This record gives sequence, C-alpha cells and structure tokens, in this order.
Amino acid sequence: MVFYAIFVTYDDNANAKLQNNETNPMENSLYRDYPFFADVQVMIFIGFGCLLAFFRFYGFSGMVFNFLTATFSIQWAILIQGFFQFFYDGKIHLGVINLLNAEFACAVVLISFGAVLGKTSPVQLLVMALLEIPVFAVTEWAVLKYIRINDAGGSILIHLFACYFGLGVTFVLYRPGLNDGHAKETTSYQSDILSVMGTLFLWVFWPSFNSALTLKGDDQHRAILHTFIGLSSSTMTAFALSAVFNRRGKLTMADIQNVTLAGGVTVGASVDMMISPVAAYGLGIMGCTACFFGYKYLTPFIARHLRIQDQCGIHNLHGLTGLISSTAGICAILLANEETYGPSMYQIFSHRAPPLGDPKLLELQKLIPGLKPGLGRTAQEQALYQVAAIFSTIAASTVGGLLTGLVIKLPFMASPTDEDCFDDGLFFDMPSDFESVAIKTTKSCDEKGEMNSNV
Amino acid sequence: MVFYAIFVTYDDNANAKLQNNETNPMENSLYRDYPFFADVQVMIFIGFGCLLAFFRFYGFSGMVFNFLTATFSIQWAILIQGFFQFFYDGKIHLGVINLLNAEFACAVVLISFGAVLGKTSPVQLLVMALLEIPVFAVTEWAVLKYIRINDAGGSILIHLFACYFGLGVTFVLYRPGLNDGHAKETTSYQSDILSVMGTLFLWVFWPSFNSALTLKGDDQHRAILHTFIGLSSSTMTAFALSAVFNRRGKLTMADIQNVTLAGGVTVGASVDMMISPVAAYGLGIMGCTACFFGYKYLTPFIARHLRIQDQCGIHNLHGLTGLISSTAGICAILLANEETYGPSMYQIFSHRAPPLGDPKLLELQKLIPGLKPGLGRTAQEQALYQVAAIFSTIAASTVGGLLTGLVIKLPFMASPTDEDCFDDGLFFDMPSDFESVAIKTTKSCDEKGEMNSNV
Amino acid sequence: MVFYAIFVTYDDNANAKLQNNETNPMENSLYRDYPFFADVQVMIFIGFGCLLAFFRFYGFSGMVFNFLTATFSIQWAILIQGFFQFFYDGKIHLGVINLLNAEFACAVVLISFGAVLGKTSPVQLLVMALLEIPVFAVTEWAVLKYIRINDAGGSILIHLFACYFGLGVTFVLYRPGLNDGHAKETTSYQSDILSVMGTLFLWVFWPSFNSALTLKGDDQHRAILHTFIGLSSSTMTAFALSAVFNRRGKLTMADIQNVTLAGGVTVGASVDMMISPVAAYGLGIMGCTACFFGYKYLTPFIARHLRIQDQCGIHNLHGLTGLISSTAGICAILLANEETYGPSMYQIFSHRAPPLGDPKLLELQKLIPGLKPGLGRTAQEQALYQVAAIFSTIAASTVGGLLTGLVIKLPFMASPTDEDCFDDGLFFDMPSDFESVAIKTTKSCDEKGEMNSNV
Repeated sequence: MVFYAIFVTYDDNANAKLQNNETNPMENSLYRDYPFFADVQVMIFIGFGCLLAFFRFYGFSGMVFNFLTATFSIQWAILIQGFFQFFYDGKIHLGVINLLNAEFACAVVLISFGAVLGKTSPVQLLVMALLEIPVFAVTEWAVLKYIRINDAGGSILIHLFACYFGLGVTFVLYRPGLNDGHAKETTSYQSDILSVMGTLFLWVFWPSFNSALTLKGDDQHRAILHTFIGLSSSTMTAFALSAVFNRRGKLTMADIQNVTLAGGVTVGASVDMMISPVAAYGLGIMGCTACFFGYKYLTPFIARHLRIQDQCGIHNLHGLTGLISSTAGICAILLANEETYGPSMYQIFSHRAPPLGDPKLLELQKLIPGLKPGLGRTAQEQALYQVAAIFSTIAASTVGGLLTGLVIKLPFMASPTDEDCFDDGLFFDMPSDFESVAIKTTKSCDEKGEMNSNV
Repeated sequence: MVFYAIFVTYDDNANAKLQNNETNPMENSLYRDYPFFADVQVMIFIGFGCLLAFFRFYGFSGMVFNFLTATFSIQWAILIQGFFQFFYDGKIHLGVINLLNAEFACAVVLISFGAVLGKTSPVQLLVMALLEIPVFAVTEWAVLKYIRINDAGGSILIHLFACYFGLGVTFVLYRPGLNDGHAKETTSYQSDILSVMGTLFLWVFWPSFNSALTLKGDDQHRAILHTFIGLSSSTMTAFALSAVFNRRGKLTMADIQNVTLAGGVTVGASVDMMISPVAAYGLGIMGCTACFFGYKYLTPFIARHLRIQDQCGIHNLHGLTGLISSTAGICAILLANEETYGPSMYQIFSHRAPPLGDPKLLELQKLIPGLKPGLGRTAQEQALYQVAAIFSTIAASTVGGLLTGLVIKLPFMASPTDEDCFDDGLFFDMPSDFESVAIKTTKSCDEKGEMNSNV
Repeated sequence: MVFYAIFVTYDDNANAKLQNNETNPMENSLYRDYPFFADVQVMIFIGFGCLLAFFRFYGFSGMVFNFLTATFSIQWAILIQGFFQFFYDGKIHLGVINLLNAEFACAVVLISFGAVLGKTSPVQLLVMALLEIPVFAVTEWAVLKYIRINDAGGSILIHLFACYFGLGVTFVLYRPGLNDGHAKETTSYQSDILSVMGTLFLWVFWPSFNSALTLKGDDQHRAILHTFIGLSSSTMTAFALSAVFNRRGKLTMADIQNVTLAGGVTVGASVDMMISPVAAYGLGIMGCTACFFGYKYLTPFIARHLRIQDQCGIHNLHGLTGLISSTAGICAILLANEETYGPSMYQIFSHRAPPLGDPKLLELQKLIPGLKPGLGRTAQEQALYQVAAIFSTIAASTVGGLLTGLVIKLPFMASPTDEDCFDDGLFFDMPSDFESVAIKTTKSCDEKGEMNSNV
C-alpha cells in the first residue's frame, strides 16, 4: 500500500486534467483495451480457478488459492512492471493497459503454481508470487528492451518462463514420499466436470488472450483466427489420441481438461504473422501430439529420474508446446517478406524497419504514416535474436525457480506434511459433509489400491 | 486439414498486404464482429455444454461430446459454408465473420444432438455433424440466394432446420426398449444445478445470438431489445405454467431449464423489425405456452404414436416456437410500410427495394446512401417467399435427417446398447466415486420404480 | 403486458424511422451501452445466482428464485423507471440504456433478497419486488432530480437503499424459532464451490457495474481502475483477516464468498473522481475490515438484540461499506478543485458548473464544448446535498422495507413454516438423490449439534 501511495498515479487516458476540447471520450484507450482485459480476467479467475479445482479433496484450495494468488500477483505486478515499463516523472502511470500487462504476469505465476498444486501452503504460494513477479518483470523488460523479439502470444516470455520457473521450484520441493502417489490425489465426478468448465472458459477466451497485446487491426484479426484454428485442431487431435491410446478406447478426462488447450500455446509466437490458416492448423496438431505424449511418458519419466514432480504437467502444456511455438515463430520470421506482408511488414516486425535517417524509412512512412524507425535487422538477424531470447528466458526462469524453491522450502513457510497434501481440511473450515466422504473414500481407495499418479 | 491447406486464405480484413495508408485499424471488421462472436462462443461451449449435462450419469458425455461435436462442426462448417458463401479467386477467404457463421451452423448440429442425447456414440455424433453441415449449408445457401428471405434470428434456417433434422435422425434410431424409460434417465441435484447454469448462460447471451447477423445500428439495437423482452416474458410464463400445471404447485427443473428459453426462439424471425415491444412480449408468452404444453403432451404423444423419441424435447423448444416465430415474421412483413420504417425499410427488407434502373431507387439512395438495388418485391410477394422457405427448409431437413439416421444406424457405428445408454462409463475412464453411486442409485430407482420419462 | 402495449415504444436509437443519411450505424448508442449491459447481466443472473445457491438444501431455490425475481424486477423496473425517466410524448422510450438502468434496480431487489433468503416463498419475493421497485424508482428520481448528487457506483442509491429496505423487511418477518439456527442452514462442499464461482463472476465484472453509468472517456477509465484496485485490496485483506481471526488460522468460505467483494461497494460513491489509486486501495481495506467484523460481531448482535435476522449479512457487505463509501464520496467532493481536475471538473460535478447566463459558463464552454449549465453549487453545498441524500435514502428505504414486510407477512402469502425453511423440497420436484441425502445429513447434524448460525 505504501508503494501505491508514493508511486502510482493515473496515465493520460485516465487523468481528468488532461482532457480538453479535442478529446473524443470514445477514443479513450479504455475502449480498445477493456474488452480484452475483461476476457482475460474471466480466464484468470474463473477459467484457471475451475481448472485447478480438479482434485476431489482439494477443490476449495484449487479455486480459492488461485483467487488469492492471482489477486496478489496482479497488484504486485502493477508495481514491479510499472517501474520497468510505465515509470516517468517519478510515478507509475496507471491505465487499463497496465492491468492487462499485470494479468499476463499473473498468468505466469498461476502456470508455475500448477507444478506444485496440492503441496504448498498459501504462504508458500504468496512468497513464490512475490519472487517470481520481479524475476519475470526483469526478464521481460530485458528481452523486450535489449533483445527485442516478436512474441505476440507470449510463448517465450509467458509459457516457457512459467514452465521452467515452476519446474525449478518443484525440483527443490521434491517429496520422495509422494513418488507412489497419494490416496487423496484423485478426482471425483463433480470435480472433473468443474475442471472441464474451467477448460471451456479458457478455450473460449484464449483468442482474446493471444491477441490482447498485438497491433490493432488486421494483426489482431489474424491472431484471433490463428488461435481459434489452433485450438480447434488440437481439440480434435486430443480426442483422437485419448481414444486411441487409452485402455479400451475410453476417453480420459485429464486429457480433455489439458491437452485440448495445447493449440492455444503452440500458435502463440507467430500468432499475428501471415503464417496461413493451414500452418495454424498444423501447429495445433503438433502441439497437441507433443503435449499428449508428454503426459503419457515424459511426466512419469522426469518424476522418476529427474526428481521433478510436475503436478499438473505444465511441462507438457506450456514447455513442449512453447518450444514448438518458438521454433515456428522463428520459421515464420525467416519466411516473412514484403511480398506476403506488403509494407506493413515493418509494423509487425518493427525491428526490421529501417533505422532513423535511412531514406527507405521516409519512403515507407509515405505508405504507412506513423511507422516508427527500427533497427534495420534482416530476417536472419531477427531469428538469431529470437533464439537468444529463448535461451536466456529459460536460463533466467530456471535459476529463478530454483532459488525461489530454496526460499519457500525454509522451515517457517508452513509447508504441509506429505500426509496433508491434497487436503482442503488443512486450510479451511470444512462443511459438515466433507469429512465423512473423505474418510470413506480414502478407505475404499486404499482397499482397491487405485489412484491416479498423474492427472 | 488438406482442405485447409488448399483452399483457405485470409479475408481482406485479416490480410496484412491489403492494409494501406487509408486503413484505420480500429475500423477493421474485427471490432464489429468479435464481441458477438465471443458471446456466441460462450453460448455454444459453456451454455450448451452445461445444459446438456443434466443427466445424472451422463454429465461427462453431455458436456464433453458437446465440446467435441461443436469443435468439429465449426471447422467443417468453415469449409462447407466457405465454399458456398466466401469462395472467390479459388480460395475461401477467412475472417471472424466466417467463424460467426460457422458457429450458427454448429448451433444447428447441437440442437439436433439434443434429440438423440444419451443414445449415440461420439462416432455417430461426428458422422451426424459431417452430414448435417453440408445439408444445412446447401439449404442456407439456396434459401438465401434464391428464395431470399428475412430471418435475422434464424428461426427458419437454424431452429426449424435443426429440429426437423434431429427428429428425422431420432425417428430412424427408434429404440423400442426405451419406451418405458431407463433406470439411468434421471437427474441429480448437482446435475440439475449445472444445467440451470447452462440455461442462464444461454439466456444472458441470447440477445447477442439473435442480433449477431442483423444490420448494424438501429436494427441490431431492436434485435437486442426484442430478444430480451421475449426471453423475459417467456421466463415469467414458464414459471407460472410450471407452478400451476405440476403436481402440488411445485416447480419442475426441466421446465426452468428449457421452457424459459422459448421466447428467444419465438422472436427470432422478426427480431430486427419494427414489431413494437409489446409484440415481442406477446411472442414470448405464446412461444413459452406452446413449448410448455409441447413438453407435457406432445413429446409423450409422438414418442408413443409416431415412434419419435425426442430426448431433450427439441420439437417443443425449437420446432413449435420456430413455427410461431416464422408466422409472426410473415405477419411483420405484411404489416411493414414506409410510415413505420421510413426509407430504411428498404434496408431491412432489402428484397423490397426497387431493382436497378428504377428511378425510385435513385431517390431512395439520396436518403440512404449505399442502399443496394433489390428485387422490387411487394410485401405479399415477400410473405409468399417466406412460406416457400419454411416448407422447403422443413422438407430438406427432414429428408436429410432420415438419411443421416440411416447412415449412423449402420452396424459399425458403435451405437451403444439400450442398457448402456445414459451412462458415462461406456466412454470415459471414470473417477473412483462414480461406480458405487451409480449402482446404489440404480438399485434404489428400480425399487421405487420412479423415473422421469421426459426431461 | 397491458402496460407494455400502451406505453412502451422505441427510443431514437432503436427506431428505424429516425435513421437518415447522416446516421452512422456504428455510432448507435447500442455499441456504447451493450458491452456493459452484457457484463451486468452476467453478474445478475450468473453471479448472484451462484452466490445465493450456497445453502446445501436450498441450491435450486437460491439460483432459480434469483432468476425469477431478477426477470420480474427488470421488466417491472423498465415500466416504473420508464415513467419517471424516459417518458415523453405519452410513451416510454425503450433502448438498451433503459435495460441497464432496470438491471440496477434489479440489483437492489436481489440485495434485499439476501436478507430473507431461505425464509420466503416465491410469491413473497415477487410481491417484495413489486413494492420495492416503485419505492426505489421514486427515491432515485427524487434524489437525482431534486437533491442532485454524485453517486456513480450507486453506493447510496443502490447499496444503502437495498440494505435498509432488506433489513426493514426481515425485521417484520422476524422468526424467533430460528434464533438458534436451523438444521438445514448449512453448506456442502459443492454448494460452497458454486458460491465461490458466483463471487468470482461478481468480482470479475464489478468494474463494469461501477462504471456503466459514469461519463464516457477518462471518467469511466478511472471508475474501472478504482473498482479493480478496491476489489484487489479488499480481497487481500479478507484473506488475511479470515486467517487471523478464525479458529486455528483456517479460512472460512463465507468470508471468501462475501467479504472479498466489500471493496467494490466501498469505492462506489467516488469511483469516477480523481481520488488517486492509493485512496481506492485504502477504501478497499477499510470497507473489507468493517465488513469482516460486521459478520463476526454485528450480525449476531442485531439478530439477538434488534430482532433483525440478516441472512446473508447484507448489512455488512452493503450497509457498512455503503456508509464508508458515501463518507468517502463527500470527502472527495470537498477536496475537488480545478487544479486536480482541470475544467472537466464541471462535467463530473455537473451541479457545480455555473448556471445559465453566468459569463464563466461561456468561458468553460470554450474549453469543453457541450458543457451543460449547472447550479453553481460550491463544494460545501454539494457535500451537504450528499448528506441529505444519504439520510433521505435510508429513511425512504427503511419505511418502504417495513411496509413491504407487513404486506408479505399477510397470511395468504404462503410463507414457509420455520421447519420448511432452507429446503428446496417445498418448492421443487426434487431429483431422486435429494431426499436421502437430506435426511441422512439432517440427522447427523442433529447428533453433532453443529450448525452455522451465520453464513
């Protein structure tokens, strides 16, 4: 709160003093950003909240800790990102655009949260958010300001960062006692339905997520089309794979809850480019396939051999797909030329625009008024910068995650014991119908010896 | 995917090459269409998904097969409708408007799905979608291109088509063994609540559905008002009828889940016309009454005597109301005159505009710049064309439905046995709490001999 | 319906006749109001519906009676508010803006509903809505037309009015038999999750609620920022207080469902003013603290000593916070000056604008074209009028609530007996799994003697 008092003020679009007789109220940036902000809000609070409530005895915690962590992360990100991106005249200038950026930082924390779901106390989650946001903000600022990449859907900065940060944390928090699963690590009929609802909210609003920070106009239009196509193709693929590779051709709810979303991540890095609809379709299929087999083989493998217990399989849904997406982004950059894009290529790939003083810049500015001077990079140069960004993001997030893991493993962080994992009863006053159900089921689970080891 | 590779490209609003120095990014068609597209997405994936999850042991299937069928239908409709409506220069030109049209085709499939809910395997559903979309696209194209009707809310093309197609399919799939109900054809407390949530999502966003394809401006404004009024009046009527006609004045959840929505369909065909708010109010009451008594008397009747097992009662919610709506649309067309509408009558009823070369056209174009030449039809002529459209839509959909039913009845379609109907266990790996509940309840249901025969 | 027939017609933005060659369809007021209308619709029907379904055996009633009451209230409010605000040429002129206003009136009824949840029949609720809407509309009209206040977020007119009206009703409906709680006054695991979903929907769309009726442009921008900040800070505070003040540091779901929302109310009265982000942050904390301790101490106190059984604690979430908000609004008015606001101060505080004929008005109109003449009030005068509005609103609502309580206590209103309270079985045909669960749990509750007296 003290930070808000000292540093935060309104940006120009929210400051009454700066409105004058040439200001058309309907051209306020609000009307450009708010619809996308609202959609992302639904994703963060309702989509993620329902999706993370998939455990049978951990539904309160999944949904409520998501709420708590998200609220804290957004406030904290407004401050931290504010210092790096919206700080001038000694103040952070606040508008809906800041909130939107903060929501993206918040999504990063929530993805990382998925790796340790069920094994962390709310205090640990808040400390994780407290540390992850600055690491993310610095990485974001460094990559965007110095490496200068194209990453409209955030495949590199959001998904890869979040994934490797989360894996770093969970590596440190390794619990050998949970290697053979946990009696309460199970779903119920209602919790699975709730989780599918969360998936559907994410699915429906993902086009807004991927397109919120693109250029307006045709770029945003393409971003929405590509995300929709990518999600559709990955959904179809997920159903097909789930039916073919599971026992007796039955579908697994965990696949439907997670793998269907892979396409949204995979189109991310090239979402605003002219990659053609069929490429988005193919990316959806590739991402979904990688994600599906990741859940099937890679997650158990890294849990057993690398001591990384990735609870929600974020490495499949965000890591593998993020890598595919980044690679596709690099290909799209290498293939970009003026023939396909026309002069607006220099808007989308703004770093390829001629630098200030270049006569070609003036020529282009006749075609596109307001084109900003760039760095005059070639496609190959830009591709190399993308590669650099990928590696430095992964490095920063892994190191950050490991250090954060060490901090939240400290004894006074109230980490739950192995036995208390996946149990709402530790953190909440439970309604009277909870305990009886829990005991009964745990018993019958023990008897049958059935439990899901990876959901 | 191959089709996407060969045929699909961007439309002008999503093509970077066609943006030039006169293009204002904020005037991209995206910002006109996307908000309505997002609302319809919520209806399709979340509204329908929750609504169809009302069976106690078929909640996974209701929600997940809705997801699968919807995703497939939209992709397929983009291609098929693309060929008929957006095909030039050897390519389908893709924009958000195509997705919006495809969502409407998808709604058609999902309504038909309601007739066979619980009795079909996912393979059968996909084949149904595979066949229904082309029949729909051809009918839509023929009716809009040759008969040329006014049907902004899709009462004829969406609701009537979907209803009679679905009835055709279910007629062929007649299961005599289910005539006396099924032990699992029942709801639970949680599934009923989930289904009401679905209803509420449909209710809230229905104004967007009915107005998405109208002309912009006052037409869309009226469409939203009429839909809202129609839904409100049908909701009040549904509550009143449910309380009065059920045993001991108790409300039935099935009425609240379905009958409340009748008004949204009934205002459809005349939704953008100057029918006055009170007419929308009256249409809501009429549609709701027809729908309610349809559920009470007609559905059991056609199940017993016509061998049509209409699982969700789509004939009541979409058929009867669609017929009322079409009739009301014809009345509204007959009553339309320049006194009420002013010159913009020739925009709404575009086929009544004078043909090219008529001096009256030039006069009108002074009042309404950009008015397109029409066919010079009179109100009576237009009304007759509407009648023709109604009959040809019903004919095409019934025949299409019957043929589709024959195809999906083929032995290799993995149709579930009578006993396995309404049971998620056939298609999903179920969580451990499912089986025990199912067995227990089925037993107690058998003992009591209680089951709902029409929900 | 008769009223609709006689009195309701379209407003200028929905009337085809009034569109001419200077009308740009995209400038129709629809596109300004509809997005906010849709957001508020989600809050009313889905947010409130889920939130009020928190009782274990009263989920159907909570959600469905919310649906019924909301639909009825909106229709009724369109007529009643129409007569007071949109009546000219002998007709009520209807546009989306009327629906938006009616939704606010509907929110008033639903808040009051919270005070008597579980103890009233649907007939009583409809009569309550029937009487509350006119009292509200008259109060709103009198306060806005004669006292002329600033209250963009409706803290005074919506929250204070609704709270004291509801308390008046519940005072008359006092049931001494429920003083020691009721066996069915309890939640379940699923109902608590559903209720949190309702809270999240309200949380996510609250910025739209608070900003829907502000001036467009920077005012609306600030309203959204303040509401978001207020909600965030109150959410953090609610979690902290819940963990600190409950037994063994456990969180209580009722706190998370209600107290987190306090910030949205608290910023209401000053939501569009230049109060600075930190003030919004502080207001969120203050409102949340008052609300939390209200639930803990005040609700039991007024139930025992003042015979006011406030079922959902609306006095905490809307009354206390509304008072804080109104006070903050007065402070913000007293602090407002041209230095902070620039000349647009006379738009926000329109009653402080110079009256017609004042030379200063002409001067200001050069800076802000279209500035309307005001009343030339000073800040102190405006503050006094705000105080007057607060007291007259509380007086009108309390008297209205008491009288309404007397009416719905009449014997033929089918009020449920004490025993039948909080039980869906009284009003609904229940699914077969309901009764058994209910009996079993009630018994075990009785044995344990555990029940929540205030949720």
